[in-house]
Amino acid sequence: MANTYTDPVKIIELKESILEDNNKDAQDLRSELKAQKTCLLNLMSGPGSGKTTTLLALNKYLRGRLKWGVMEADIDSDVDARTILSAGISAVQLHTGGMCHLDADMTRQGLKALFESTDEHLDFVVLENIGNLVCPAEFDTGAAIKMTILSVPEGDDKPAKYPLMYEECDLMVVNKIDALPVFDFDKEKAERYAKHRNPSIKVFYISAKTGEGVEALAEEIIRQVQAWNA
Amino acid sequence: MANTYTDPVKIIELKESILEDNNKDAQDLRSELKAQKTCLLNLMSGPGSGKTTTLLALNKYLRGRLKWGVMEADIDSDVDARTILSAGISAVQLHTGGMCHLDADMTRQGLKALFESTDEHLDFVVLENIGNLVCPAEFDTGAAIKMTILSVPEGDDKPAKYPLMYEECDLMVVNKIDALPVFDFDKEKAERYAKHRNPSIKVFYISAKTGEGVEALAEEIIRQVQAWNA
Repeated sequence: MANTYTDPVKIIELKESILEDNNKDAQDLRSELKAQKTCLLNLMSGPGSGKTTTLLALNKYLRGRLKWGVMEADIDSDVDARTILSAGISAVQLHTGGMCHLDADMTRQGLKALFESTDEHLDFVVLENIGNLVCPAEFDTGAAIKMTILSVPEGDDKPAKYPLMYEECDLMVVNKIDALPVFDFDKEKAERYAKHRNPSIKVFYISAKTGEGVEALAEEIIRQVQAWNA
Repeated sequence: MANTYTDPVKIIELKESILEDNNKDAQDLRSELKAQKTCLLNLMSGPGSGKTTTLLALNKYLRGRLKWGVMEADIDSDVDARTILSAGISAVQLHTGGMCHLDADMTRQGLKALFESTDEHLDFVVLENIGNLVCPAEFDTGAAIKMTILSVPEGDDKPAKYPLMYEECDLMVVNKIDALPVFDFDKEKAERYAKHRNPSIKVFYISAKTGEGVEALAEEIIRQVQAWNA
């Protein structure tokens, strides 16, 4: 398979929401997705933690077991959607026009475009949110699962400094564990900070680059998606 | 000198601004700082790029040549102010109460507390902004110099994905160059993306950990501070 995708990437310029009650809109969207048996995962992290690379690594285990697609949100550029499409996964690029997060209405605009881009029913959709540890955590997008990635080079103190993100998420993925020997990262400390805010958060250690730990994360995601769609 | 600071850290809970025109307020603050010969630098980056570690590394060259202080902005925690104080630098911790950025009025509240915390006149003050590549770039804080840090593990595509940050900044610091052998980071590409948005941005390559490249960055900062305060 080619490493680059040369067809035009479908880019959706999101419109700012006019709805006043995002929480209600998110709840409605979640119900609609439940009814049509599509599980939405909101993937959040700081910039450069490896969101897109993690999705590519997960694909090895997800393909064949789930029909899935990705919405790549970005302020500008289409590099991420291009990368995902190159791997044979359905994808659209969402441009937020400077906005630092997505809300439920923007997610709905993206889902419409993603569903229109493929003939298949999608069991599982990932919203790759804007790289930002602060604002995305404040907005319910209608997702059934919320997952955050903390990469080893970012440091073990992030769950103490950006508490809302860890409070909100169901899954915490520590990525780039292949770089543990080069960075001063205390796994026990990172996990303790996160669980202090959210005792039920599930923690996975992976290297999206080498593939280490990815299978266990994929199995957990498949389990949650199947439970949602049952 | 001790590695930990055990006295209570001065924590300022910032109030949300009531001023409507942040640009005017920022311009006023800049004029006041110019009149009192204090140069303010707004330091911005994603989470975990090494803002605090870079300030510690710069101190080796700044101390004795500039009287300086640091405002550590954070949503929660006081770990950064504690670290800076341990190095003998004046510092206060600013809590934004969940806010993802600082504006001029919040910066003014922090400066008041920092100036009150020391008997010395400060030539140079660094505002270490919230770790966020999106929102802080949108708000003028009254700073004379804007600097952003991109760490090697974050990837060379960040200037393409978060263009406003690079458009706004005078200095771009590429940190963690000691990790270049472990990560796929193209210096030429990162610099090209940034200069496409901002041809006059000055780029420095450093490792705050090993000290490589830090002296040249410190000399540039000292030059700009002295020019501002002349």
